[in-house]
Amino acid sequence: MTNTYMETIVAPATTPGTGAISIVRVSGTDCFKIVDAVVKLKSGNVSDAAAYTIHYGEVLSAEGSVLDQVLVSVFRAPHSYTGEDSAEISTHASSYIVSELVGLLIDAGARFAEPGEFTRRAFLNGKMDLAQAEAVADVIFSTTSASHRVAMNQLKGGFSQELAGLRAELLDTASLLELELDFSEEDVEFADRGRLGKLLDTAIEHVNRLAASFRQGNMIKNGVPVAIVGAANAGKSTLLNSLLGEDRAIVSDIAGTTRDTIEETLNLGGILFRFIDTAGIRESSDTIERIGMDRAFQKLSQAEIVLALLDPSANILDQTKLVSGKVDTSSQKLFFLLNKADILSQNDINNFVTILNNYVSCADIKCNIVQLSAKCGNGLEELKKQLVECEKDLIPNSDSVFVTNARHYQSLQEASTSLTRCRSSLDQGIPTELLSEDLRSAISSVNTILGTSLLDPETILHTIFSRHCIGK
Amino acid sequence: MTNTYMETIVAPATTPGTGAISIVRVSGTDCFKIVDAVVKLKSGNVSDAAAYTIHYGEVLSAEGSVLDQVLVSVFRAPHSYTGEDSAEISTHASSYIVSELVGLLIDAGARFAEPGEFTRRAFLNGKMDLAQAEAVADVIFSTTSASHRVAMNQLKGGFSQELAGLRAELLDTASLLELELDFSEEDVEFADRGRLGKLLDTAIEHVNRLAASFRQGNMIKNGVPVAIVGAANAGKSTLLNSLLGEDRAIVSDIAGTTRDTIEETLNLGGILFRFIDTAGIRESSDTIERIGMDRAFQKLSQAEIVLALLDPSANILDQTKLVSGKVDTSSQKLFFLLNKADILSQNDINNFVTILNNYVSCADIKCNIVQLSAKCGNGLEELKKQLVECEKDLIPNSDSVFVTNARHYQSLQEASTSLTRCRSSLDQGIPTELLSEDLRSAISSVNTILGTSLLDPETILHTIFSRHCIGK
Repeated sequence: MTNTYMETIVAPATTPGTGAISIVRVSGTDCFKIVDAVVKLKSGNVSDAAAYTIHYGEVLSAEGSVLDQVLVSVFRAPHSYTGEDSAEISTHASSYIVSELVGLLIDAGARFAEPGEFTRRAFLNGKMDLAQAEAVADVIFSTTSASHRVAMNQLKGGFSQELAGLRAELLDTASLLELELDFSEEDVEFADRGRLGKLLDTAIEHVNRLAASFRQGNMIKNGVPVAIVGAANAGKSTLLNSLLGEDRAIVSDIAGTTRDTIEETLNLGGILFRFIDTAGIRESSDTIERIGMDRAFQKLSQAEIVLALLDPSANILDQTKLVSGKVDTSSQKLFFLLNKADILSQNDINNFVTILNNYVSCADIKCNIVQLSAKCGNGLEELKKQLVECEKDLIPNSDSVFVTNARHYQSLQEASTSLTRCRSSLDQGIPTELLSEDLRSAISSVNTILGTSLLDPETILHTIFSRHCIGK
Repeated sequence: MTNTYMETIVAPATTPGTGAISIVRVSGTDCFKIVDAVVKLKSGNVSDAAAYTIHYGEVLSAEGSVLDQVLVSVFRAPHSYTGEDSAEISTHASSYIVSELVGLLIDAGARFAEPGEFTRRAFLNGKMDLAQAEAVADVIFSTTSASHRVAMNQLKGGFSQELAGLRAELLDTASLLELELDFSEEDVEFADRGRLGKLLDTAIEHVNRLAASFRQGNMIKNGVPVAIVGAANAGKSTLLNSLLGEDRAIVSDIAGTTRDTIEETLNLGGILFRFIDTAGIRESSDTIERIGMDRAFQKLSQAEIVLALLDPSANILDQTKLVSGKVDTSSQKLFFLLNKADILSQNDINNFVTILNNYVSCADIKCNIVQLSAKCGNGLEELKKQLVECEKDLIPNSDSVFVTNARHYQSLQEASTSLTRCRSSLDQGIPTELLSEDLRSAISSVNTILGTSLLDPETILHTIFSRHCIGK
């Protein structure tokens, strides 16, 4: 790989802003020559420096004044992030210095890197496969222990190994088929069609299991969707604000204040929850408000968890029925929240809870019941605890494999379709050549995820690496 | 210095946010032991690593899963930023990873650093004097080449050298005095009181020259104050917006829209200008607007440059007189801007310019006259060019010394007062002991700047280092 000439690229690698240190990253064939032209080391030069060493130097501006005192870290191909000769120049964290330094490096022959280009080169130089390269961005954007762990496992190659296992199964099956093809001219049909069927069944089960993990993987990455629904003025926005501990939603005493849906994420017990405040459900002649209500019901049907707020100052049973008819408790988790517990007597609360319990037990509704005061915060900790308990299987252990990437999910679905078609062709006694084609298509789908054989490499690479920031 | 036990401190050294790399900095006696407890290197450990080397490793979370793959840079006392054993841990730029890693290092025995504590240790360990330590923050906050150059010269010790020169002069003088004191019991008075006077004059001139540079130094650092004044609706806010290229000030056709002063800085030719939009000057019964006008005149009197916008649709001479009486052209630079040039015929413009030229020449007012259209942008480049030309002596060369720090300025003024008193005591034939006291006080003032002998070290250190960010 050191024989291929690679243009030298440069970009800031740290977030712009005021800190103590900023880093400018340089990588490519002429990296050391270019850095030597810009940084005068205290002794020697970067071109002669050993790998993994750090050197003190001064950057001189075009007019010869000292731009900054810097440290240069030297990485030699192939043992660097990109696999190329690379340097990281550590400066005082001033955006003025960083932009001047990048300018000087460009004047000396480097060019400004495209978004994600450092990671792209790491992939092209075989430092990581495509699924790993994609995980770099996921690791950086992770905000909870669950999403971090899944992304880190993918970065470390856990997901790639799982796919390699799947690929091996598919290649096994393919080789059986190819064997038959080799003998096809002799008009011999293998007796082992049964074994082929079993191999295909295993592979289909494997692909489907991975594809199915996308629902959870997506929730780990983007948050468990929790819809907050209820009658107008039941206190939905107040609940959202209390959960977040800040005034995000507009709260007023006028029923119908929340006209659009508001989403906020919150890290509870290492799991990301995405709370969706919805418009109040009630009769209304206001067109905009009715659009809001339609959206509320739509959000409700898409949610993993539904928090139905009950206002004890109105008819509890009416409110309960309105929501329970819209929730599919076989796939969704339903919470009834008896709100405004602070303004009720204990007797009233007990009565309401009895009414509610009777109703859900008669109607056979699976749900949790929590009494709280969204305004005072009573009962909120209990609600949070129950939410985490609900989703505790989203906390992955360090080698859990989840599909979190829509591109991977799509490829797995394609593989599943090809394999299922292959399986049914086998049952129908369709010629081996055609079976083989479907199988090869399934292998190709898996390869696409790892980037080992790209049909349209430029398009896929562009899609993937444009997600990355500059300097990565 | 390696014999003194220093608690190990830790802090993120890069700006929080999403980038490619984040750095966590660790420094102190147990630095390597603590990093070894948290980072498992691929081979060996940090405690045994050579100075200025980089090592790949994995950070394990408390539950044993991989938090991140990191690079550890090793710096050994006294050859580090702080002068202590230090390490920089380079992680993927995720705020989740950084906060978890800092937590792990604290669990292993480090404590979270106070703002500026790394630089404070560098000072305490003799890696830099106080003026240099203060320059670290100035370098980071610099946004123009001029302010950067002055700060970098101070960081490199240029300012300290200048002060060391001054201190040497004062010590010379003091030694002459001490000599006299040594012989005082013999009732001998030195004939060389003339030489003493000359030395004092030189020192006073030197101190005053440095103190005087604060006016420029302050402008380099905080921007040249430029007041935009003129009649209501003359287009002051429009001019500010056009200069900045964005809609910062509220612009409307209703006279009196800008009621408070608005300040914005702009880098022109490497110099920072601080433009101050003011309330329109006119008769008004509105109390708030009149407060705004008082402020306008106040800003005008404090400005280095006054841009007086003239509206050709009203009486030019009236407007000219209103402003010129308020500007002291011996210390302030005055620009008359003939605005709305786009809606005037060339003939009209020529007429106005003639009127204006006649007036300023008769009244002997030193000023520049620029015709422009704040709205269309015509003439703006010419105005910018003239502004830069006005202040071109603010562009320092790489070894220019400017006082930019109010603390330094204050110390220099104190030194000046002591020296002046000493000089007049000498003339009055006051006894040598009393002269000596003033001289020692002047030396002590200079020492305070460099931090070589602090009267109340804790207070001064706190004031200085609390300006720094955490992690610096």
